[in-house]
Amino acid sequence: MITPVILCGGSGTRLWPLSRRDFAKQHVPILGGGSPFQRTLERVAANAVFGRPVVIAGGGGRFMAADQAAAVGVVIDLLIEPEPRDTLPAIAAVAEWAARRDPGAVLLVLPSDHLITDAEAFAATAKIAAVAAEAGEIVAFGLRPSAPATGFGYIRPGAPLSGGARRIAAFVEKPDAARAAALIAEGWLWNGGMFCMTADAARAEIAAHAPVIADAARRALDDATVDLDAVRLGAALAEAPKTSFDYGLMEKTDRGAVVEASFAWSDIGDWRELWAQSPKDQAGVARDGDAVAIDCRDSYLRSDGRLLCALGVEGLAVIDTPDAVLVAPLARAQEIKGLVAALAADGRREATEPARVHRPWGWYQTMDLGARFRVKRIQVSPGKKLSLQKHHHRAEHWVVVRGTAEVTRDGETTLVRENESVYLPLGCVHRLANPGKIPLEVIEVQTGAYLEEDDIVRFDDDFGRA
Amino acid sequence: MITPVILCGGSGTRLWPLSRRDFAKQHVPILGGGSPFQRTLERVAANAVFGRPVVIAGGGGRFMAADQAAAVGVVIDLLIEPEPRDTLPAIAAVAEWAARRDPGAVLLVLPSDHLITDAEAFAATAKIAAVAAEAGEIVAFGLRPSAPATGFGYIRPGAPLSGGARRIAAFVEKPDAARAAALIAEGWLWNGGMFCMTADAARAEIAAHAPVIADAARRALDDATVDLDAVRLGAALAEAPKTSFDYGLMEKTDRGAVVEASFAWSDIGDWRELWAQSPKDQAGVARDGDAVAIDCRDSYLRSDGRLLCALGVEGLAVIDTPDAVLVAPLARAQEIKGLVAALAADGRREATEPARVHRPWGWYQTMDLGARFRVKRIQVSPGKKLSLQKHHHRAEHWVVVRGTAEVTRDGETTLVRENESVYLPLGCVHRLANPGKIPLEVIEVQTGAYLEEDDIVRFDDDFGRA
Repeated sequence: MITPVILCGGSGTRLWPLSRRDFAKQHVPILGGGSPFQRTLERVAANAVFGRPVVIAGGGGRFMAADQAAAVGVVIDLLIEPEPRDTLPAIAAVAEWAARRDPGAVLLVLPSDHLITDAEAFAATAKIAAVAAEAGEIVAFGLRPSAPATGFGYIRPGAPLSGGARRIAAFVEKPDAARAAALIAEGWLWNGGMFCMTADAARAEIAAHAPVIADAARRALDDATVDLDAVRLGAALAEAPKTSFDYGLMEKTDRGAVVEASFAWSDIGDWRELWAQSPKDQAGVARDGDAVAIDCRDSYLRSDGRLLCALGVEGLAVIDTPDAVLVAPLARAQEIKGLVAALAADGRREATEPARVHRPWGWYQTMDLGARFRVKRIQVSPGKKLSLQKHHHRAEHWVVVRGTAEVTRDGETTLVRENESVYLPLGCVHRLANPGKIPLEVIEVQTGAYLEEDDIVRFDDDFGRA
Repeated sequence: MITPVILCGGSGTRLWPLSRRDFAKQHVPILGGGSPFQRTLERVAANAVFGRPVVIAGGGGRFMAADQAAAVGVVIDLLIEPEPRDTLPAIAAVAEWAARRDPGAVLLVLPSDHLITDAEAFAATAKIAAVAAEAGEIVAFGLRPSAPATGFGYIRPGAPLSGGARRIAAFVEKPDAARAAALIAEGWLWNGGMFCMTADAARAEIAAHAPVIADAARRALDDATVDLDAVRLGAALAEAPKTSFDYGLMEKTDRGAVVEASFAWSDIGDWRELWAQSPKDQAGVARDGDAVAIDCRDSYLRSDGRLLCALGVEGLAVIDTPDAVLVAPLARAQEIKGLVAALAADGRREATEPARVHRPWGWYQTMDLGARFRVKRIQVSPGKKLSLQKHHHRAEHWVVVRGTAEVTRDGETTLVRENESVYLPLGCVHRLANPGKIPLEVIEVQTGAYLEEDDIVRFDDDFGRA
């Protein structure tokens, strides 16, 4: 039995405006289906060789991770890291957590943003890696390079080990294109960021080569607390130096092994990569959503609801979202990251926050905004409730358009049914809850001179925000 | 005194998605200010040589014409044509209308979608034309060609007349590029669709050369009725054959004269032309609204509210509206018309109807749409009221967010103030009115199984729709 360990702490913005700081790439629904994180969960859930996945996420992403796991019906163990410290501290903490339950547990560390469609080939590779892991090796998945990419680490497979793995003979990090081509000719493989080892071996090797991080992980587990459906790791983990598993361990340990992966793979690194992975028409045009392409070539057109019409464009990404539109050549997709950084430096909300803002209880989205009013659509998950709160500068009207709401107003609680409304005057202490079995949807009309999120006084909260 | 006659019956879609069948090009706000129609009104209002403008519009556009004229404070006479029959029937009707008041009135016919920034030079040309008009001539404005365009008519100025006009020696309609270049070298001018003549001369010449149209115009005036703030021309005008003023009169009369115009001019024919007329940065990028351009060249970026980011694009038009986005090379702007026709043939609402739907009482716009609900923002102009109505399939909540509403519900009328709401159950007979002096804004939340505009039974209406 292999325990998948899914690293869900990243906040990729390279699929902006679809992904944002507060809505990471691994959570963006792609290719007409689930998110990369959900596809990762489904891939391991599909084969009995894998046990219950452990997911490690940040304090911002934990609810999204839990919600998306629940949406695909995969039960997870969820760990919350105090802040992002790169992969080695995160893996050290998970190894410590796992070793305390079962030192011999075989862990398979997986990024949450990989697209691997051949689940059987993936499981077959994992089984080969598990054999080596049980012999005490720290096993990397080596991916057959498809191009002389300069952004990856390269691994040279060395002497054969029992069961199909090979000793790692050498590493090269991010070579230039000429060197990359030479490495590929010599049979080097890409380091895909997937690793297999027992909890005990991981703990021992990290203690040997990164003792400060091993110590931080131990203390983080000693101080861990249960926080709703998750384990919140202690603050000590934030003291660990930011270090990658590759640099901090794989390149140092002499237990490093590699298994060549037999599956096709993509890290959906940017719009060009997503275009490459998408179904396309004969002219090379991939469309997602309500997009019309007339005489276009080799382009990616994505609409989030509006009618998107492209005429006569070539090699272009056009991404439409409720609050931001991007138009850029696919060939320059790598520059989106810099664009988003510039927007963030300008204080643009669209750089960091998605139009649909996810909360532990569901989500809200501004649908209309005037000089003295704001209209939001609010969805509350079954059984969830917002905080007990009041506002100093705004009154609110709630119209229930789906489900049933339990509304508390200055101490009195009533049920508000579909097509009914309730008024919350300025200063009134109120709470919205969904006591039902289906999502509750409410249209909220706010009126007042100041309508920002920070006009809120919380008295009680299910999610520790009061 | 010259009476401007503004032809406002067109429904240009070449600026789609900003312009639509139901929101014609002449009414689209451009270049960070008023619409071409409003600029035309302001241009004639700016000089005392011009009297009160006469505007002729269709039944669909009349309220928009009246509203946009009121918004720039220009008092107009408004004629409604029963259906669009091209320019000659429209001008014949206006000439008949004007001649019955003052046969000697000097009329200056102007398209409503021209951009002419030099109002003084325009007035100077009009004065020269008026002198010839008072001598009985039918005077065309001749524009100095800027390129061998193939879409225009060309006029050869002939013998000089008194006052600066010249007899028209010949016409050529839409020559090919080589012929156009030759004509320009010989001193031919573009026919700009602007004409000056007395009401009497127009009537007489139309009677001589297009007697069927002259007769239709006479009968349309005999049967004209007053309709609110406008004169509704009789149905007889719809019997007139579709004919342009150029083809049906100018090319036939021997009273044709031409005055060379001394002003710069654009018909804002498509996005490329609007880009050419717009202020641009050093890289040739014109931006309108919240648009960010990084390393772009020679492009037109227009946002209607969302953040629009373009990176590394060249020669592109990107037009963002609440319900449709267009991306196309400026060089192919001429093809937009065909694109819109294809969308209309597919039954796409976005091809014909704008997101903000204008009504005689104001406008509404859908801001959110779910499976069983719709959220609209409604604005009612001061003193206006919607029809008395009921719906079979939906209930409505109204939240007043600006101004004061007078709401009638099953015979009872109450005032609903800012931050108050009212509920209209399914089947209730209701009416919304703005009794105040500022625009009334209401958020309407509809719930029900069927939420389209045609679920309406009207009992009484200020605008003749009951």
